Amino acid sequence: MSSLPAVNRQILYAKRPEGMPTLDCFKLESGPIPTIKTGEVLIRNYYLSVDPYIRMRMEAKDSYAPVMQIGEKMVGRTIGQVVQSLDNSLQVGDWVVGRMSWEDVSAAPVKELQKIDPSFKPLSAFLGALGSTGLTAWVGLMAFGKPVAGETVLVSVASGAVGSVVGQLAKLRGCRAVGIAGGARKCEIVVKELGFDACIDYKSPEFEKNLAQALPGGVDVYFDNVGGPITDYVLTLLNLRARVALCGTVSQYNATELYGIKNYREFFNKRVSLHGFVLSDHRDLWPEATREIQEAYSAGKLKHLETVAEGLENAPQAFIDMLNGANVGKQIVRIV
Amino acid sequence: MSSLPAVNRQILYAKRPEGMPTLDCFKLESGPIPTIKTGEVLIRNYYLSVDPYIRMRMEAKDSYAPVMQIGEKMVGRTIGQVVQSLDNSLQVGDWVVGRMSWEDVSAAPVKELQKIDPSFKPLSAFLGALGSTGLTAWVGLMAFGKPVAGETVLVSVASGAVGSVVGQLAKLRGCRAVGIAGGARKCEIVVKELGFDACIDYKSPEFEKNLAQALPGGVDVYFDNVGGPITDYVLTLLNLRARVALCGTVSQYNATELYGIKNYREFFNKRVSLHGFVLSDHRDLWPEATREIQEAYSAGKLKHLETVAEGLENAPQAFIDMLNGANVGKQIVRIV
Repeated sequence: MSSLPAVNRQILYAKRPEGMPTLDCFKLESGPIPTIKTGEVLIRNYYLSVDPYIRMRMEAKDSYAPVMQIGEKMVGRTIGQVVQSLDNSLQVGDWVVGRMSWEDVSAAPVKELQKIDPSFKPLSAFLGALGSTGLTAWVGLMAFGKPVAGETVLVSVASGAVGSVVGQLAKLRGCRAVGIAGGARKCEIVVKELGFDACIDYKSPEFEKNLAQALPGGVDVYFDNVGGPITDYVLTLLNLRARVALCGTVSQYNATELYGIKNYREFFNKRVSLHGFVLSDHRDLWPEATREIQEAYSAGKLKHLETVAEGLENAPQAFIDMLNGANVGKQIVRIV
Repeated sequence: MSSLPAVNRQILYAKRPEGMPTLDCFKLESGPIPTIKTGEVLIRNYYLSVDPYIRMRMEAKDSYAPVMQIGEKMVGRTIGQVVQSLDNSLQVGDWVVGRMSWEDVSAAPVKELQKIDPSFKPLSAFLGALGSTGLTAWVGLMAFGKPVAGETVLVSVASGAVGSVVGQLAKLRGCRAVGIAGGARKCEIVVKELGFDACIDYKSPEFEKNLAQALPGGVDVYFDNVGGPITDYVLTLLNLRARVALCGTVSQYNATELYGIKNYREFFNKRVSLHGFVLSDHRDLWPEATREIQEAYSAGKLKHLETVAEGLENAPQAFIDMLNGANVGKQIVRIV
């Protein structure tokens, strides 16, 4: 059973970054253990998820999410154990996942928490393939990519938390799955560990030629996490009536000058549909998505990949590393 | 009743253009009057439509339509009168519209022709608001823009053949219609003749400021005919869950270097959907579209605007003028 620490370490948003965040954009402070009120529980956090979308919230201007203010606690999903409860629906000892902060101990209303089965291994999968990144992959691919068996699904940031699940789901639907990732090591993992049919290294000087060769039948579904020059080139490989599920543009989050997409006309020429989406708009799909993902995971047909950093104090560096693409799979910070 | 000319003047595709086409890309020749076989009719062409998509077919590389080969006849929709018939479904004297060539006399299978009512004035409207450009406006707006009463619909090339109909249909659906067009005169026509709520001149140095001011509630539906820098700026004005119906990118058809769209990330930030479309993919919608357009036209609620050039020999210049934006409404060439 979890015990409470003497103080609650918290990571605050300290400075607005220009381009890639640096460590001085964050500040570690110690505060008191929060007190809870009726309907809330106190949670000892064990695992923290650091995600690309947080970078967008560090901008001065609203993007798809409201901006964070300097001095606020950094937000993120965590997995933790209930150590106090003022609600009958959760007992001390229960394990939960929810949107909390980069901190040791969180107070949260029970209605914003999801109880999880602690016998699951690794538990951190509930921040990845079995959590919101897995759901994001499912919703984007199924609702907007609409893959049909035999079609080709291309995924950018294929080694990332979302992309790694997209390709596996595409394979389960009988599609050819091709990934794009940075570096030979990641590409090897994407093919050998995750079962993609091919994965092309965008850092190679031969990237465009290699990608075209890996896609002799073109692209029917493009699951885009990256934007920028990679997406610009991919647009020229789309088939007639291709579908683009746009989940993010991570190549542009730290850009001081935005890249211009020259091949916009391909959306017309190929009669392409594109959908920008975020998970929270599609709650109606979560039950079906959760069922399919959990069944596939339990059957050993879907893997959760993760990269784990040790210690809450290292969350800022893990976040920066993740933005630099150092992670394979879900970037997790182990707090306890 | 139409009589046959002594020779059949035809305009051929003579030279591939680089950038904007020039007159030497076309060649006027005289050939024999075609002979027809069973199931066909001979048509004396009266009106010819010259359209932006033809420019794309003059490229060396397939776009959404196959390329034309040097020496081929220029293709285009015409309105004409049947002068010989080898099919019971059409009689000499009937009027038809169909996809033919830039020529005085065409032979065509009756199944590719649509009979029209010659009492209609102007008959050339069957190449515009009552024809394929009107259908294109309807299909793009209704199937992909999905406008809801009270929403704002923005249309680029609002003074063009398609755009002029889009705004009028948006008004009929209870939307606010805002256009973008080149020059004060066109903008005035768009507002005063067509009933748009506003029209902003993209040639003004104050274009961006003026457009933002005309859209205090943002953009819910963007019907895009233009691409390029205009569209790039419009993306920053889209509302959450806006819909983009992409009908063409005329700003890029003659571009020797493609413009790069910097605001691609807005598709994600605003959870936008975009659909590139062509009319021929959506035949299932034609009956409903035709009914609504004809009813509105008959009730005086929808106008057909046109610019008419005189003489088949002037079709190349009319085509170039249209690409330069000299036309208001549908660019027609009167042959007889």
